Formats: sequence, C-alpha cells, structure tokens
Amino acid sequence: MIIPDYDDVLEAHERIRPCIHRTPVLTSSFMNELTGAKLFFKCENFQKAGAFKVRGATNAVFGLPQDKLSRGVATHSSGNHALSLSYAAGRRDIPVAVVMPRTAPEAKKAAVRGYGGKVVECEPSTSSREEVFAQVVARSGADFVHPYNDPRVIAGQATCSRELTEEIKDLDAIVAPIGGGGMISGTCLTISSIAPEVKIYAAEPEKADDAYRSFKAGHIIADDAPHTVADGLKVPLKELTWHFVSNHVEDILLAGEQEIIDAMYLTWQRMKIVMEPSSAVPLATIIKNRELFAGKRVGIIITGGNVDLNRLPWNTN
Amino acid sequence: MIIPDYDDVLEAHERIRPCIHRTPVLTSSFMNELTGAKLFFKCENFQKAGAFKVRGATNAVFGLPQDKLSRGVATHSSGNHALSLSYAAGRRDIPVAVVMPRTAPEAKKAAVRGYGGKVVECEPSTSSREEVFAQVVARSGADFVHPYNDPRVIAGQATCSRELTEEIKDLDAIVAPIGGGGMISGTCLTISSIAPEVKIYAAEPEKADDAYRSFKAGHIIADDAPHTVADGLKVPLKELTWHFVSNHVEDILLAGEQEIIDAMYLTWQRMKIVMEPSSAVPLATIIKNRELFAGKRVGIIITGGNVDLNRLPWNTN
Repeated sequence: MIIPDYDDVLEAHERIRPCIHRTPVLTSSFMNELTGAKLFFKCENFQKAGAFKVRGATNAVFGLPQDKLSRGVATHSSGNHALSLSYAAGRRDIPVAVVMPRTAPEAKKAAVRGYGGKVVECEPSTSSREEVFAQVVARSGADFVHPYNDPRVIAGQATCSRELTEEIKDLDAIVAPIGGGGMISGTCLTISSIAPEVKIYAAEPEKADDAYRSFKAGHIIADDAPHTVADGLKVPLKELTWHFVSNHVEDILLAGEQEIIDAMYLTWQRMKIVMEPSSAVPLATIIKNRELFAGKRVGIIITGGNVDLNRLPWNTN
Repeated sequence: MIIPDYDDVLEAHERIRPCIHRTPVLTSSFMNELTGAKLFFKCENFQKAGAFKVRGATNAVFGLPQDKLSRGVATHSSGNHALSLSYAAGRRDIPVAVVMPRTAPEAKKAAVRGYGGKVVECEPSTSSREEVFAQVVARSGADFVHPYNDPRVIAGQATCSRELTEEIKDLDAIVAPIGGGGMISGTCLTISSIAPEVKIYAAEPEKADDAYRSFKAGHIIADDAPHTVADGLKVPLKELTWHFVSNHVEDILLAGEQEIIDAMYLTWQRMKIVMEPSSAVPLATIIKNRELFAGKRVGIIITGGNVDLNRLPWNTN
C-alpha cells in the first residue's frame, strides 16, 4: 500500500491547477444564526465537471508517464468520478473507458460521453462489473484509476482542504461527507500535515453508516448496496482510505434521510446554490450536533452539484 | 421628476456598503461555448434578501433624514422589493409596512414578516391596493419607497453595474432583465456616466413585452396583468425609468416562455446556481441572438434567486 504524503499534495496541486477552478468559500449569516457556529462552505459544486472528484482524477491523468498515455485510463463508476475522469482525460487528449451498469440513468451516460468518455455497459451486479472491467483493461492496457482507493486520487482531493485553510484561518473543525473516504482521506492528509489542531469530522447518512460502524469496530465493515438519498455515499471504505480515517478522523456523525433533505433544501433556498444530497450531510450533522459546533469556526466541504433537476428529493410526490 | 446622477450613485454605494454583499462575478466555459461570447454573470441571487433590489431599498432607507425615521417606510409589492425593504428597515430598526394582495403566497408574506416587516393585506386589484396603501400612508406618515420609480432606488440599483465594471474590464455589452425598469435604469445611469461605449440591452419576456412596445412606439405602453413565468417582470415602465430606457438602451430583446425556462434550467444545471425565471431572460435572449453577441464580452445581471423550490417551472407536471 502506497500512502501519499504532503509532498504528493503539493505536487498534485501544481499539476492540476491549470485544469481546475479554485472554488469560492461562501458564508451565510442565516446558517451561522441557525447553527450558532461560523460556517465556511468550500464550494466544490462549482468545480469543473461539478464535483471535487476532478481534483484526484486530474492528478492521476496528468501524472501518467508518457509511455502509458496511448493506452489511456479506465474506471468503474456511475457517479462524479466517471465524469471527472472523462473530463481530465479529455484535457490530456487520451482515451478513457468507464464501465457502468446498463441500468444507470441515460443522463449520466450522456454526460460521460459529452466529456469524450467511452461508456462500456455491464449488468447491474458486482460480478458483472468486475468481469467487464477486467476485459476492458486486458484489451486496452488502460491505467485503472480507482474512484478513491488510489494514492494519486487522494493526493488530488487533498488540495481542496489546502485551498480552504489557505483562505480561512483558525478553523476549529472541518466536516466533510464520507462514502468511500476519498475526500475525507485527502482532508486528513492535508490537515494532519499543516493544521493538526483542526478536528476532522466525517458526515455519513444513517442509512449507509458502514464507515461509522467501521470506525467504532476498528476494522472495515462493508455493506451491500445501501439505500440513501445521498447517493454519492453508498460505497465502502477500502484499505487506503481506512488508513486515513482510522488515524485522523475525530468522529463520524450520522444524519437521517429527512434531515439530509431538509439541510439540502435550506441550502438551496438560503444560499442559492445547487448541490447534491451528499453535500448536505455535513450541514445536517452540524444542525443535529449543535453543542459540538456552536461558537466554533467550521469548514464544510460542499462536494458536488450534479443532481437531476427533474427529480429533486423534496419534489418526489 | 428628480433624475439621479452619478454622484448619487457614489453616495448610495458608500451608504449601502455595510448592508449588502459585493456579489461575485461567475464565468462558465460551457456558457461561453454555447453562445460564442465571453459571458460574465453578476450574481445578485447571492445578494442579501436574495436580489439586487436590496441595493435600492437600502439606499432609500439609510438616506432617510432623522426626523422621518419613527414613521418608517411603506411600499406595495409581493416580490423582492417587499423583502428587500423589510430587510433594510430591519437593519435601520424602523417600521415597515408592505401592502400585498391577500391572495399572495403565504411563503412571501412569511418571508416579509421574517425580516420584521408588517404585511397589510388588500384585495387582488389595483383599486384596492391603491386604497389600502393610501390608508397605510395616511395613518402612519410612512415614506413611500416605490419599487423602481424612485431616484433613490435607481441610484441604489446603479451600484450593481458599478461593481461589475470595476471588476470586469472592456465589456462590449451588458444585458439585464426589464420589468418596471429599475435595474436597467440603474445600469443606464452608471454606464452612460463611466463607460458609455458599453451597449445596454434589456431582456424581456415576449408575454410581457410592454417595455419592448413602448421602446418601439416612443412612449410608455402599460399592460394589465400580463402572464409570464418571469414573474418579476410583469410591471410597466414609469416616467423615471422611461427616461433612462428611452435615452440609453440600445435595444430590447424578447424571449419566449420555453426559451426562458430552458435558459434557467441550463444555468442551474451547468453553473449550479439557484436563480429566478426573470434572471434567465438575458441568457435566453443571448442564445437567441447569437450573431449580436458572438465574440463579445458581455455582462449579465442575474437579478435574484428567490424561487419556490417546490414549484420549479420544469417540474410543473
């Protein structure tokens, strides 16, 4: 297992800078009054391809040695990593194949193709995905860029909290969503290196609380296909993200489905930003754990803004 | 008729600065590719109270002489001006009464009350509104702050394009929505004073094209209660806004209902910002008049973000 260090983060930041936005940090007096904390929202929903994942994907793609370029990159994902890797590969003009269940929404497949990615369909099962993915890699020799269990990806995601702490001084805590743990691991990597006094909290849906149970048990627990409105957070921890989570996270906080939807609605309504349900989990946990955060300066990572505007969670009736 | 000049704008800017946000200017490579222009979106949807109208309202409220304060301010509006005047009056801690049709959405009444405003209901007719409003003013002696036909309000709105031109140099054009003409008049006031080479286009819904017809006819034409999704743009020009529109606007461009909804959807989807239908009219007209704007540097005023998230125009089925 290769564990990235802070030099890798600095290198990643230089490498990806031309391809990413330095996203703004927003504040809201309404949210501060609501929570009693001073909140700083790092808006990766405004990021290229609509999510922080473009940081890690771009670092992996632009770090590829010359002799590997023609074979391109590949991944399996039906979410933001698929989009982000397609965007990054397009910027470097190399091939990219994304294995996706044939049942994935057409809009997601179209978005990958829109960035120049090739969609390879599999059946909606883990065994089919692994089989099809192995075939793709065997045929093309493409470099596998895992959505989060990859040191290049984690070093890339780590640039986000570097920007946040450069801009906002004296944070007491950072809260970020946790699914596979890529963003949280990047946050741990940066914060443990340059601001170890800042506490890192991971925010997770109750309905997909495998990271929470892993954290309490002291080893990885993976669930099979949990259901939550925060659909970016269903995947389990892997060994590399577990390393960071188990060593550097202060606690994992949970939020229920309605709490997540309410926090999302409130953010859209008061802050006028479009963000994914996954991005609302940190605010939901802060509202729920007022005593933990009141009076504190708290960074929140708004992880992405790719949401189906025709199927908003408060409009499902 | 008192016509505000650029000194009034500078004074307004100093006066309102502590109460407003200096809103960000966003760009989008997707939107640039789509239109062939270089677009700069001045995001007043992130403004206090959710709309540019807080600029004019705050200027009126904070410009009130000491001896008028106890009697407060009053207006009739069921839109952003009502919210904005309530916000501003709250900041100066003076009374504010807003006359609204009893049929206005409860959410709008609640929002005014949330900022400390007093809602006075009238019947949903012009005659009832005028009668009730006259009673309110007679009883309280409140200062009437018209939503747009007021030099203090126009000088306040004019600070928006001042910020835009300070930040973005060498604009070829600015496009802003037109309803009663407050924002456009403010834009005319600033631009004709400090950047007269910048062309000013007003963008209007086809279904509420009274400003367009006024512009072509050379005199004010007012419609009775037009219907459009861009519900902030239904009101007619008045003498003060007509002065600015007739003297300084290059042209008025029209967009159809579906074009407005499409532009709004596209902005939410690609730029991840929540904005009102009215704010989408400029982009709709730029998409429609490609030859006019391609290759140009164009400022767009995103006028506000107060929208009912439960009734989005693409989700009405």
